[in-house]
Amino acid sequence: MRIDGRESMQLRTIHIEPDFLKHPEGSVLITVGDTKVICTASIDERVPPFMRGEGKGWITAEYSMLPRATEQRNIRESSKGKVSGRTMEIQRLIGRALRAVVDLENIGERTIWLDCDVIQADGGTRTAAITGAFVAMAIALYKLYEKKSIGKYPVTDFLAATSVGILENKQIVLDLNYVEDSKAGVDMNVVMTGSGEFVELQGTGEESTFSYGELQDLLKVAQEGLMELFEIQKEVLGDEITNLIYQNRGDKEGKS
Amino acid sequence: MRIDGRESMQLRTIHIEPDFLKHPEGSVLITVGDTKVICTASIDERVPPFMRGEGKGWITAEYSMLPRATEQRNIRESSKGKVSGRTMEIQRLIGRALRAVVDLENIGERTIWLDCDVIQADGGTRTAAITGAFVAMAIALYKLYEKKSIGKYPVTDFLAATSVGILENKQIVLDLNYVEDSKAGVDMNVVMTGSGEFVELQGTGEESTFSYGELQDLLKVAQEGLMELFEIQKEVLGDEITNLIYQNRGDKEGKS
Amino acid sequence: MRIDGRESMQLRTIHIEPDFLKHPEGSVLITVGDTKVICTASIDERVPPFMRGEGKGWITAEYSMLPRATEQRNIRESSKGKVSGRTMEIQRLIGRALRAVVDLENIGERTIWLDCDVIQADGGTRTAAITGAFVAMAIALYKLYEKKSIGKYPVTDFLAATSVGILENKQIVLDLNYVEDSKAGVDMNVVMTGSGEFVELQGTGEESTFSYGELQDLLKVAQEGLMELFEIQKEVLGDEITNLIYQNRGDKEGKS
Amino acid sequence: MRIDGRESMQLRTIHIEPDFLKHPEGSVLITVGDTKVICTASIDERVPPFMRGEGKGWITAEYSMLPRATEQRNIRESSKGKVSGRTMEIQRLIGRALRAVVDLENIGERTIWLDCDVIQADGGTRTAAITGAFVAMAIALYKLYEKKSIGKYPVTDFLAATSVGILENKQIVLDLNYVEDSKAGVDMNVVMTGSGEFVELQGTGEESTFSYGELQDLLKVAQEGLMELFEIQKEVLGDEITNLIYQNRGDKEGKS
Amino acid sequence: MRIDGRESMQLRTIHIEPDFLKHPEGSVLITVGDTKVICTASIDERVPPFMRGEGKGWITAEYSMLPRATEQRNIRESSKGKVSGRTMEIQRLIGRALRAVVDLENIGERTIWLDCDVIQADGGTRTAAITGAFVAMAIALYKLYEKKSIGKYPVTDFLAATSVGILENKQIVLDLNYVEDSKAGVDMNVVMTGSGEFVELQGTGEESTFSYGELQDLLKVAQEGLMELFEIQKEVLGDEITNLIYQNRGDKEGKS
Amino acid sequence: MRIDGRESMQLRTIHIEPDFLKHPEGSVLITVGDTKVICTASIDERVPPFMRGEGKGWITAEYSMLPRATEQRNIRESSKGKVSGRTMEIQRLIGRALRAVVDLENIGERTIWLDCDVIQADGGTRTAAITGAFVAMAIALYKLYEKKSIGKYPVTDFLAATSVGILENKQIVLDLNYVEDSKAGVDMNVVMTGSGEFVELQGTGEESTFSYGELQDLLKVAQEGLMELFEIQKEVLGDEITNLIYQNRGDKEGKS
Repeated sequence: MRIDGRESMQLRTIHIEPDFLKHPEGSVLITVGDTKVICTASIDERVPPFMRGEGKGWITAEYSMLPRATEQRNIRESSKGKVSGRTMEIQRLIGRALRAVVDLENIGERTIWLDCDVIQADGGTRTAAITGAFVAMAIALYKLYEKKSIGKYPVTDFLAATSVGILENKQIVLDLNYVEDSKAGVDMNVVMTGSGEFVELQGTGEESTFSYGELQDLLKVAQEGLMELFEIQKEVLGDEITNLIYQNRGDKEGKS
Repeated sequence: MRIDGRESMQLRTIHIEPDFLKHPEGSVLITVGDTKVICTASIDERVPPFMRGEGKGWITAEYSMLPRATEQRNIRESSKGKVSGRTMEIQRLIGRALRAVVDLENIGERTIWLDCDVIQADGGTRTAAITGAFVAMAIALYKLYEKKSIGKYPVTDFLAATSVGILENKQIVLDLNYVEDSKAGVDMNVVMTGSGEFVELQGTGEESTFSYGELQDLLKVAQEGLMELFEIQKEVLGDEITNLIYQNRGDKEGKS
Repeated sequence: MRIDGRESMQLRTIHIEPDFLKHPEGSVLITVGDTKVICTASIDERVPPFMRGEGKGWITAEYSMLPRATEQRNIRESSKGKVSGRTMEIQRLIGRALRAVVDLENIGERTIWLDCDVIQADGGTRTAAITGAFVAMAIALYKLYEKKSIGKYPVTDFLAATSVGILENKQIVLDLNYVEDSKAGVDMNVVMTGSGEFVELQGTGEESTFSYGELQDLLKVAQEGLMELFEIQKEVLGDEITNLIYQNRGDKEGKS
Repeated sequence: MRIDGRESMQLRTIHIEPDFLKHPEGSVLITVGDTKVICTASIDERVPPFMRGEGKGWITAEYSMLPRATEQRNIRESSKGKVSGRTMEIQRLIGRALRAVVDLENIGERTIWLDCDVIQADGGTRTAAITGAFVAMAIALYKLYEKKSIGKYPVTDFLAATSVGILENKQIVLDLNYVEDSKAGVDMNVVMTGSGEFVELQGTGEESTFSYGELQDLLKVAQEGLMELFEIQKEVLGDEITNLIYQNRGDKEGKS
Repeated sequence: MRIDGRESMQLRTIHIEPDFLKHPEGSVLITVGDTKVICTASIDERVPPFMRGEGKGWITAEYSMLPRATEQRNIRESSKGKVSGRTMEIQRLIGRALRAVVDLENIGERTIWLDCDVIQADGGTRTAAITGAFVAMAIALYKLYEKKSIGKYPVTDFLAATSVGILENKQIVLDLNYVEDSKAGVDMNVVMTGSGEFVELQGTGEESTFSYGELQDLLKVAQEGLMELFEIQKEVLGDEITNLIYQNRGDKEGKS
Repeated sequence: MRIDGRESMQLRTIHIEPDFLKHPEGSVLITVGDTKVICTASIDERVPPFMRGEGKGWITAEYSMLPRATEQRNIRESSKGKVSGRTMEIQRLIGRALRAVVDLENIGERTIWLDCDVIQADGGTRTAAITGAFVAMAIALYKLYEKKSIGKYPVTDFLAATSVGILENKQIVLDLNYVEDSKAGVDMNVVMTGSGEFVELQGTGEESTFSYGELQDLLKVAQEGLMELFEIQKEVLGDEITNLIYQNRGDKEGKS
């Protein structure tokens, strides 16, 4: 039994509220236990300078925390005048992950901006951000598709992320909260597609290490958690978007 | 009749949800029409260097917008590496206003940080921030008082803010939304105490001007709106805090 | 009697020296008691990117202090690598105020830069800057008009600013010097046109408040001081420019 | 056969030149094919503020490239005034990895700074930096140990890193050079201890994904390459340091 | 005959107005032709951290230009968020030069800040700044000496600077104005003590070179100009300060 | 005899290794005693905006030190977010010096970037950088000439730099190392062309001064050292480039 009463392989309570904000093309509030992240998707009718004229689109992400998302107040990065290494690492991860399940050729010369703003943090903010941003992006792209700004729905698979870790007592656990995360010897973030392929795998043994056998166990636990997350995403997105994604996935598998 | 169907002197629908977040000592989500601001109050057991050893406290505020709080996505100030003039002006205003209704001698060498993060913007974000931050601060200070960290509840009066303006058709209106605000010839923010005293008055005629008579009309309208805001604040804060504030106000008036 | 021997409603000695510098299109040294500000107006034959192609001009201001304008040396903002909130607030105010008395349609796609550099500070630097910058700008625009770069002289009214405040002893005073300003409970900056219309009104009760009655008294005192400032501006600008402004003011009043 | 004539599982030519510079406590020039990195270890007799008084040490890394380490000249990060996300991600990785094989309790309140400066880049700069920085650090710590500034040699295991990837033709390859890296669908960096435990695993499918079976193959190839790197490190460090590390590793394994 | 009617070896009209500002311990407005620089000397009762406890003082300088000191408006360095290379080079030069004629042991643990702000520029701003800053500093140190904060007047010699150059027509000229400076093939700044010793010599042939013979001619012309500057400094400083400096110079020469 | 056993007029051991790096158009590792600098020349097929359309080229330099080039580790300028005054002064000097021996009209609208990165410092890094950068640049420009991208080899003379100084014991010495440099009363950097003309002369008496007689002695010593440096440059560049330079020098002298 874990500190918050969960089983080793149990996710926290997950909730994804779509259309949380009025202005963005897509937006959700994702709640994973006490972690809450607002994810918005904005369509910008331009691509960055290095991509102009190539006829394809771009997806990029920004991540931030409210100063008092955490137990101790953090100084704003805008006040410090620079973005921390941790923030940059996370936003690069989110952007890279989402680009793996979108056919960039099919969105035209547009940029999708994903803004993930943590309003309350209790561990797992980067994986919640990926899981929520996927939904916000899928909704925003569906709007483009609906009004025929793009000819084909460009999302090729579902995408979600979770964490697994090895606690001090060697217990392998799924979806670590903040207290578990700060004590875990090994911490691994797994980003996966709905078809069970890895997109990103980041395992870290801070002042600790892990064996090949432990790696295998960690990945098995992660995969089971991710399957639950895909079910939640499908429910939120509804049948129409889900079917469009399945269709694209079929096409892709047919090709390979 | 106004663009959103309101009367000239009618506020938008206001809602203040207390204890919106888990970690801060005080927090609210304030909703003013489509404008939504998360206000948190954090107690820091230190004062800034220039105040050390004086035995009194400090109150300071920070203000920010999510990139997609607005119709067009804004670049984050942390990405730009600097805070805009507009942001600085607003956060200086919020801090100054709140300091007017707290007896800084009574809070000890502590800093109260007020973070006002706009998650959805439709005009009037700075006045909503002041009105909400007051409630978050009153709650946070009550916690200090309850656990006897401070001997006397230090809030000396209610504090709220609203806007008034003169539209292109010369109509004087209360609580401008974004569309009205961007077209108004004169825009005035009024910060007032529960006893009806001015704390801050900022009237601006951008590419326009206003006469003494118009000023008198604007202030009358503002005052009526503010009285409604104080009623909402009292309801959210409850009888115990409200009575403590009334008592302090009485003491102050007795003295002067 | 005030600390420097003035009556409550007496301005300090004011002097405006036109053409103080060789290079700028317009420049003055304005002296208000011991406060001295160099104001220059520069004509830039471009507008900022967001205004290109609209066929109208822009007016913007920058404000700074020499490090030793004050009693204690201040660190340069260029050394700190960022501009303070106070500076930004003041330069936004100056720009906004001046735009209220210029017909931007009549200056073509040009930017007027107003640089206000305080070389000696003794309170009231922002109001001195506005009063002096108006003169520098009026001269610079007259040069454009004289050489027929613009068809119509675009200044539509005089513009000046002063401060009023309530001292600790409740005395209402005009044009506060530094010692008065740092002790005043209420401080108000009033920017007005030559026709007596308000352009900007900023009243602040730092750790204090003010009633509606006090506001009325403050405004009355401010207005009397401002009338003296307009007389000085007219004298410095001379009959030709003064008459052009009167003519434009008449046109505007005729229209409204 | 690969573009540079190597077999799939063949490392590039590796050379580590110890004591490359005069001033640092430890320094190497590591050459991996055409990639060349100067790694220096500096002992600072202080720890960062957040660790003072805890009686343990800290290890931190910085990474940079000469502007012309690459085919196209890069703008210096000092000229841009900020460090890129990529740089931050890499230096966080290097520091984290090295902390996994040092007993921080045994180095006293000291900081080991590892500076990894790429003077020529041809892919794999971050893994070369880790492999080289380990040697520089082991040398620097040996000097502290030799002059009895610390009682026990604190390095608990060898540490090296390499990359593996899946090329467009699905070929799995070891130690990717720049051309391979920029075309690979999957890229994985593996940091491992001399005992074969993982310290860090970062697998990324940029615009691509990888299956569980592919992951297993990648890790097998990586491990074989790493074993060769440990042999080179041992040779450079010599018997005395190698034996001290073996002894610490034995102690650690005995304990666990 | 030169462009402004001067002879080759003729300085422009020089004027030094002492006590130009109210707050600083020493201040002058130095006018060299159309170049005008406000130089202030501020006494800070601390030294920089790297000098604490050594019992001696420090002298440092900052240099800046008003945006419209020049024919074209320059962007403020505070707006750009960084100080240019040119500015840094000049302020390092001014500080270094002044430290050569002050006995730092005799000023106690104090910093003398010299702020040189160019309000109008027409070439030679750095040499005017040195010549003026010397006077401001001598006055400020005299005040310290007068009120017995320091036991011995610490200025050991006069110090002034001027420029010499070789024009396109090979003519050697003294004290170049802006037009001459921008066309000169060789430009040399010479900083000299009242006894005729060099403190700093900076000769530059931008896209040009100069021979040993030309160097000798340039130095001769510079020296004659500098002798005139020392006479002006003596007149402004008055007999009392002048005699104190002569006395110190005698002491120094006696020693060497 | 000097601290490192050299005679007063003896250079340290100099070595210039051409083609040190793979990617740059020109590169050297220059070793002057224990000072080691990597100099690279990069050809950029554009000029800075202020020079576009003029049909001529530009040469600019950047200078940096590895953090552990020195005895104490220095903080990276990229981490500090700004370039120091010393760095800016040096890179401006390098660029200016090299521009004196290249016919910018003959290189077309190209920029030559010279990057001088000090990997080990023991005094004289800026003069080593100039001497080495000249060779890197001469090689890079020869490649352009060889492939007929430019019609005429544009280097018009050799260029080298060294330092001379006056030690505490009044001894005049050539090519100061770090220990000598930090104790010298007078320090002078001399940049000269192969024909013996001065390009730049920077003599500084930090807390000291120097007479005209001392200046003459210093320059004589510098010139002898520089002649040795030109011989080394010729050897490294080879007969072909050397002859092209001689030819251009002859042309230039013929003209003047």
